Amino acid sequence: MSNEVRRLAVIGIGSGDPDQLTLAAVKAMRGTDVFFVLGKGREKDALTRLRRDMLAEHVPGPYRVVEAEDPWRDRSQEEPSGYAEAVHDWRRRRADVCERLIREELAPGGRGAFLVWGDPSLYDSTLAILEDIRARGEVTFEYEVIPGISSVSALAARHRVSLNRVGRPVHITPGRRLSEILPNDDGDVVVMLDAHESFRHLAGGGVWIYWGAYLGTPDEILIAGPLDEVSDRIRRVRAEARAAHGWIMDTYLLRLGPDAVDG
Amino acid sequence: MSNEVRRLAVIGIGSGDPDQLTLAAVKAMRGTDVFFVLGKGREKDALTRLRRDMLAEHVPGPYRVVEAEDPWRDRSQEEPSGYAEAVHDWRRRRADVCERLIREELAPGGRGAFLVWGDPSLYDSTLAILEDIRARGEVTFEYEVIPGISSVSALAARHRVSLNRVGRPVHITPGRRLSEILPNDDGDVVVMLDAHESFRHLAGGGVWIYWGAYLGTPDEILIAGPLDEVSDRIRRVRAEARAAHGWIMDTYLLRLGPDAVDG
Ligand SMILES: C[S@@+](CC[C@H](N)C(=O)[O-])C[C@H]1O[C@@H](n2cnc3c(N)ncnc32)[C@H](O)[C@@H]1O
Ligand SMILES: C[S@@+](CC[C@H](N)C(=O)[O-])C[C@H]1O[C@@H](n2cnc3c(N)ncnc32)[C@H](O)[C@@H]1O
Repeated sequence: MSNEVRRLAVIGIGSGDPDQLTLAAVKAMRGTDVFFVLGKGREKDALTRLRRDMLAEHVPGPYRVVEAEDPWRDRSQEEPSGYAEAVHDWRRRRADVCERLIREELAPGGRGAFLVWGDPSLYDSTLAILEDIRARGEVTFEYEVIPGISSVSALAARHRVSLNRVGRPVHITPGRRLSEILPNDDGDVVVMLDAHESFRHLAGGGVWIYWGAYLGTPDEILIAGPLDEVSDRIRRVRAEARAAHGWIMDTYLLRLGPDAVDG
Repeated sequence: MSNEVRRLAVIGIGSGDPDQLTLAAVKAMRGTDVFFVLGKGREKDALTRLRRDMLAEHVPGPYRVVEAEDPWRDRSQEEPSGYAEAVHDWRRRRADVCERLIREELAPGGRGAFLVWGDPSLYDSTLAILEDIRARGEVTFEYEVIPGISSVSALAARHRVSLNRVGRPVHITPGRRLSEILPNDDGDVVVMLDAHESFRHLAGGGVWIYWGAYLGTPDEILIAGPLDEVSDRIRRVRAEARAAHGWIMDTYLLRLGPDAVDG
């Protein structure tokens, strides 16, 4: 019976500023019985609080919030040995967690939602998890995806720059892939998931960096300039902020070549 | 005097679905006296109507809407001869138009806004235009940027896919650069501004395409599958839709390699 189908929404909530919520996200939240919040590590507390505040402000209720540990791991920091096995194991574990949540916490006919940081289509595992669970076939559901403002869009907006120059490509990459991405063409590069300050390996001549941390939050930090001139400052500010908060979320745009400003 | 400063907002309005507006966009719209709408060609009517509907729904008023022709040209379809001169000329013309709008239509101390399709940071000229006008120094203003849901995020959401696979890059490119972008790494590719159906030149083996046109609008069309199997269908559907509307906006994600689904 169609009213016995579990319905899920994967809702992008923006990357820190509660006003980045879209009208579609607010509408979807208002139709939800149970919110699933996956988090991990030390960031979790801050980011979970932000989600609870959003719900308190926009959803009259009643609703429930179910928190769980995200079994997502940042593999950018791992060695490639045992890679396939590690991926297999990780997929199984994350599907286990979410399958259980959906089965135990969401009644058939009910509506659940995952509140996803930024945009669900960028470096987030929720959609892949749901596809894994569907492939197992043990719990059935329908789902839809509500796009959100990514940290990439937030970064560009706060620096008031375009991600691309006229007619050229833009590349988005995890930090550990930066060295491979750089030399291939005249596009610009956005770096995410970079625990290692990969920008410091670049020869700075002609490179501009637009860096942002905790974008959209009251702790937001923005630094922009020629990489040669601002690299050390970014590293110092980043280390201090990370020590103060216990965690950091940062991303940056690298604009290459002499015509660094949009030509 | 600071209350004599003109203030501008560059507001991303999403890529077709009025519910993609963010709360920040609605708030910024409500504080605006004059809206500048740049459009061009045959799409202009449809897209201008959507903006007027958004304002009618969300802004109690009073406000004014000023429309102008966007001197932006799709240079993806031009030959590189005379390139520098053409760019120079184009920058001057577009800055002329907007400088005049700001000076004549926005009183000092007033608040103006540009309603930008999708996200202002992706293949949109508004930010570069404003920087050009500031560089001229003949009219002064402050401005801020409100990020919007890009057609890229909308595409991924409607197909319920991630733009990237785990740990890998994603590339966004205008159609005419696709052939250069493709072979360099294991990332996925999003193609915009593609008047020439560049996907048809790809050897399809192992390539998946997620294609979307008029995303977020009542005319939305989605087609996904192995490129080999769906390429002809996309071309037929695209030609028919374009003939029926007189214009088309489409974009697509290409997922390469045999493990086409997120591994
Ligand atoms: C697991 S990814 C999730 C990205 C998210 N889906 C999005 O659309 O932004 C996390 C990475 O996003 C970036 N990020 C997310 N939120 C951020 C913020 N508020 N400020 C700076 N960077 C952010 C950082 O590069 C971080 O390592
Ligand atoms: C000049 S660019 C502007 C992009 C816009 N700033 C954004 O964030 O989506 C126009 C291109 O965006 C894509 N596009 C914009 N809106 C779209 C829609 N509703 N459906 C499909 N493609 C769209 C198409 O590739 C089109 O050629």
